[in-house]
Amino acid sequence: MGIRVAVAGASGYAGGELLRLIAGHPELDLVAATAHSSAGKPVSAVHPQLAGLDLVLGGTGAALTDADLVFLALPHGQSAAVAAQLPGGVKIVDLGADFRLRDAAAWDRYYGGTHAGTWTYGLPELPGQRAAIAASDRVASTGCYAATITLALAPLIAAGAADPADVVVVAASGTSGAGRSAKVNLLASEVMGGLSPYKVGAHQHVPEIKQASGATSLSMTPVLAPMPRGILATVTARPLGDADPREVLAAAYADEPFVHVLPAGVWPRTAATAGSNACHLQATLDVDSGRIVVVSALDNLGKGAAGQAVQCANLMLGLPETTGLSVFGVAP
Amino acid sequence: MGIRVAVAGASGYAGGELLRLIAGHPELDLVAATAHSSAGKPVSAVHPQLAGLDLVLGGTGAALTDADLVFLALPHGQSAAVAAQLPGGVKIVDLGADFRLRDAAAWDRYYGGTHAGTWTYGLPELPGQRAAIAASDRVASTGCYAATITLALAPLIAAGAADPADVVVVAASGTSGAGRSAKVNLLASEVMGGLSPYKVGAHQHVPEIKQASGATSLSMTPVLAPMPRGILATVTARPLGDADPREVLAAAYADEPFVHVLPAGVWPRTAATAGSNACHLQATLDVDSGRIVVVSALDNLGKGAAGQAVQCANLMLGLPETTGLSVFGVAP
Amino acid sequence: MGIRVAVAGASGYAGGELLRLIAGHPELDLVAATAHSSAGKPVSAVHPQLAGLDLVLGGTGAALTDADLVFLALPHGQSAAVAAQLPGGVKIVDLGADFRLRDAAAWDRYYGGTHAGTWTYGLPELPGQRAAIAASDRVASTGCYAATITLALAPLIAAGAADPADVVVVAASGTSGAGRSAKVNLLASEVMGGLSPYKVGAHQHVPEIKQASGATSLSMTPVLAPMPRGILATVTARPLGDADPREVLAAAYADEPFVHVLPAGVWPRTAATAGSNACHLQATLDVDSGRIVVVSALDNLGKGAAGQAVQCANLMLGLPETTGLSVFGVAP
Amino acid sequence: MGIRVAVAGASGYAGGELLRLIAGHPELDLVAATAHSSAGKPVSAVHPQLAGLDLVLGGTGAALTDADLVFLALPHGQSAAVAAQLPGGVKIVDLGADFRLRDAAAWDRYYGGTHAGTWTYGLPELPGQRAAIAASDRVASTGCYAATITLALAPLIAAGAADPADVVVVAASGTSGAGRSAKVNLLASEVMGGLSPYKVGAHQHVPEIKQASGATSLSMTPVLAPMPRGILATVTARPLGDADPREVLAAAYADEPFVHVLPAGVWPRTAATAGSNACHLQATLDVDSGRIVVVSALDNLGKGAAGQAVQCANLMLGLPETTGLSVFGVAP
Repeated sequence: MGIRVAVAGASGYAGGELLRLIAGHPELDLVAATAHSSAGKPVSAVHPQLAGLDLVLGGTGAALTDADLVFLALPHGQSAAVAAQLPGGVKIVDLGADFRLRDAAAWDRYYGGTHAGTWTYGLPELPGQRAAIAASDRVASTGCYAATITLALAPLIAAGAADPADVVVVAASGTSGAGRSAKVNLLASEVMGGLSPYKVGAHQHVPEIKQASGATSLSMTPVLAPMPRGILATVTARPLGDADPREVLAAAYADEPFVHVLPAGVWPRTAATAGSNACHLQATLDVDSGRIVVVSALDNLGKGAAGQAVQCANLMLGLPETTGLSVFGVAP
Repeated sequence: MGIRVAVAGASGYAGGELLRLIAGHPELDLVAATAHSSAGKPVSAVHPQLAGLDLVLGGTGAALTDADLVFLALPHGQSAAVAAQLPGGVKIVDLGADFRLRDAAAWDRYYGGTHAGTWTYGLPELPGQRAAIAASDRVASTGCYAATITLALAPLIAAGAADPADVVVVAASGTSGAGRSAKVNLLASEVMGGLSPYKVGAHQHVPEIKQASGATSLSMTPVLAPMPRGILATVTARPLGDADPREVLAAAYADEPFVHVLPAGVWPRTAATAGSNACHLQATLDVDSGRIVVVSALDNLGKGAAGQAVQCANLMLGLPETTGLSVFGVAP
Repeated sequence: MGIRVAVAGASGYAGGELLRLIAGHPELDLVAATAHSSAGKPVSAVHPQLAGLDLVLGGTGAALTDADLVFLALPHGQSAAVAAQLPGGVKIVDLGADFRLRDAAAWDRYYGGTHAGTWTYGLPELPGQRAAIAASDRVASTGCYAATITLALAPLIAAGAADPADVVVVAASGTSGAGRSAKVNLLASEVMGGLSPYKVGAHQHVPEIKQASGATSLSMTPVLAPMPRGILATVTARPLGDADPREVLAAAYADEPFVHVLPAGVWPRTAATAGSNACHLQATLDVDSGRIVVVSALDNLGKGAAGQAVQCANLMLGLPETTGLSVFGVAP
Repeated sequence: MGIRVAVAGASGYAGGELLRLIAGHPELDLVAATAHSSAGKPVSAVHPQLAGLDLVLGGTGAALTDADLVFLALPHGQSAAVAAQLPGGVKIVDLGADFRLRDAAAWDRYYGGTHAGTWTYGLPELPGQRAAIAASDRVASTGCYAATITLALAPLIAAGAADPADVVVVAASGTSGAGRSAKVNLLASEVMGGLSPYKVGAHQHVPEIKQASGATSLSMTPVLAPMPRGILATVTARPLGDADPREVLAAAYADEPFVHVLPAGVWPRTAATAGSNACHLQATLDVDSGRIVVVSALDNLGKGAAGQAVQCANLMLGLPETTGLSVFGVAP
């Protein structure tokens, strides 16, 4: 008899990936999965890749209280209400943005509405954060863009090797990052064969990225790419001092199971991380401008969402951090 | 200390998938992986998705003899020579075509060269085959097209519900099925955004499909599709009697862990099987022509190659058949 | 001052392609384009590829009466009402299914609702049809699947070389063929990386294909493919007599500007027809089954919709049939 | 009888697009097309999208001297030798890099070998360049990355609105930009479903971009994207003064037929430019960093190669600049 877990918001892409990871996790038992408009349907009617998983989606709120730990994979702004209905003893990992920010004003500016509060930030690779997560009952798992960019940037800023006030990021995401709602601009016909920037100049994840990475000024341009999964972030910053940026990263992540600084000269490819909880990194100095260039790749549904959440849950539950997670991508 | 396994031909796509599955298999220890032109390189230099796997590719022939079981993922025609060098006690699963056919003349006609021989055919879902595989030291794992089409067709022919002399198949494969050699027609620029039939009228896998499925006349048209993985076979046949084809399949596979006959009206999608060892099936009678239409989907590198091979190996080694294999696809 | 044309239903994919073709047509002047929910928007807000086309979409019904010829690119079932409002002297090319069928019962069975009537069928390559179109004021342009399959099949049946009672077709279409409505199953995340059959066993285009090709029994399985444009149809039939199917097709299309029977051994690829009004064909006899196999490729928005409609309009207006149309695809 | 043109290097992707554009150009007659290993083959055997174009590829050097104008679409480093064999009266447009740079040292550093020389730079939208091209017999047409980035950047630097010493670019290209040679890393299996950066920190096109745009320090990271055509460049720069960057661009390109500054808030998408000679631009100030962000999209084979070359040729031949070129993309 394993640890009892539940997923609220199981009909979206992150929810589906959570169900897949939980099904393959040796210590977790899925006791409930809830959804809004899909309540009452078998899981496999919503997620064809889970054919054989014998479970019916419940209505939001149903049966979550029986779980030892609940994953919330809800639309932004809905986590607080669901969390409030859970008994105090139930541990929670929120995959949404609601509890990530410390700065209520930033929440107001980018999301609007009431700031729900601040939970322990769920990125175990940040200094001190692994222990904090393990000691918490409420964790706000990091967002997909924030994970990709923070893992590339935070050690350089912490080491004094990169100027936190001069960071420029272009990050391209696969379409699952845009969610599963039926919108014309997300139709296959519109997306295949092309690249589309969006929310240029003011993306709502900038405050989270600054908070987590230590950057004080950051230009971020997000691009929608014709692939289902993956984020590739190109992070450039003005160097401070003369540290080799690759060595700074390699030292920071030497003991991390999920973050790989690739051999010198080998650059990350998103496809190599698909389906895994790995993040691949590489860095160099640009010959012409002298800027640091770090490229970071991960699976937005893996280390950027569901995998990250399971990693946090493992810590919160006292399990080995890597249980039920793979570092190896499904490629080609 | 687990069972010692090795992979010969580890630099191709099936080889890479084998390494990934072995790395996640709780009972198997990878002791060697060999390659031809990539010998001497770290595995991750050839398979970026396996960053973190600490192994150097050996030259073909090296160190395979230390293994309890060897997987051969070599180009067609090369398995016999490598197998001959292995001690009799080493079990072998061949992913190539060399030992699949019983009919030497068919080998000559489609492949040319000397027919290597006939090993136990590695498709456990065929009647009697599971026990035969478990009792064998040499198994010729089924091919990707043959697995997809045979699983759709064999129970219908065996039940007398489909005419074996009137079968028409169109099957589309993702590009990994075409292998990893550098050819202009396999370049992304040539493949993306289009569909291309190939080897129309005379595909070399037809004899294997007929042998395994019981069909006596079969028209098969293969199509290259712009996706990395997956095969979708549309199998039509003239019905005999009035059995419901979906019910025939559902009865045949009721106890199979990897073959799912989907709920009536739900049709297989290749993406739902990506990265898994599942095969999804659905069948109906065409309203206008009265023909049986079966659609079959699987991952050509999973149930069509590496997953299938591990399933056979599990049987040969006395392990539970599903060990280290997943029925859940990585989607979207 | 050119011939005045208008497009009703200009916000969909076929409508957008019509606008592009009209803009490049030396004899046609676009005087109006209408849409439903997008009325009032500039064309380029709906079709980014037409940036620079200075026209605002009107409401359906507006200004169409000023045109010499109107293209209807409306959802199925809406053409009759719009056509009824146009003066008798206005020529009409309907891209919808409403006026294609001669058999009202078939309309009822597959589409439901009132059968609108029967107009001249707009496939100029059928025997006698070119003159009929040129003499008509009302033309029902052929559908995308029907064009692809009929061009492959009709000459073989007409020549007595193929059995009209034993035809099996599998046809894969790009996503633009499924239209531009916001549906979850058409999202890029769902479509990329996979193949999905749909409407298996009873597709609504079967009656049109039988009517146009002469087939009397036809099994058709449609598949959605991860590409924006293109249809690839694999058409197999039992041969009658011993005519070479490729030669039958080559003779039938020797003088056709838009239908190319490729050199023996070269098989059609959808990408080669993208953006053009070309249809590529190839045929052979299957070695194992003896069946005729014809593969046909075209652009579902080109020869399968907007290009076909412009070809018909050219005939109706007394212009050279190829005016404003290209046989060369945009590839890679 | 039109103007006689020839294409050297017709078997590559840019060569194929040139043939397509010339075939649709009302004033140009194609008299010869040459290739290296494909010499002797019909054009359509190499470019299936040109089925129906009745021409056999000649060996390099053959028959070019009969032309009034020759397009060179050769691998870098080969143009000088071919140009030297042409009579002085033959006009030449070179699509390669050989004659673009004014700085021989930059050539040595990034390309190596002898610097061939410097021809008139073929980007008509640069101030004064249109007239220079019209007066030249030898023109070095701009490269695909340089066209995309220079059109975004040059007016801002020229207007004193952007700091030429602080430019950061991330630019993603479709696979046709990588050429048509058979390399494993360009296989569809490797490219589909992922993004891969390459030549990070030192791309050979940086000197051309700096020369053409006026930038004095430029960090450029190129990324390979899973689409056949298109470049999307995100160009950021520190602003000087308080000019609105979108207005600077709109003023600079107000009369340009091929460069469209989109309506405020609408961002370029590569797919909208496919098959056309258009470049789409948009700009804003990033809220957090204050940096200028310009996004530029074009078809790397169109305005980035063959379309650009035809535009130059039109100028050199005294034809209207837009003859035979379209501003409308083939989408979806």
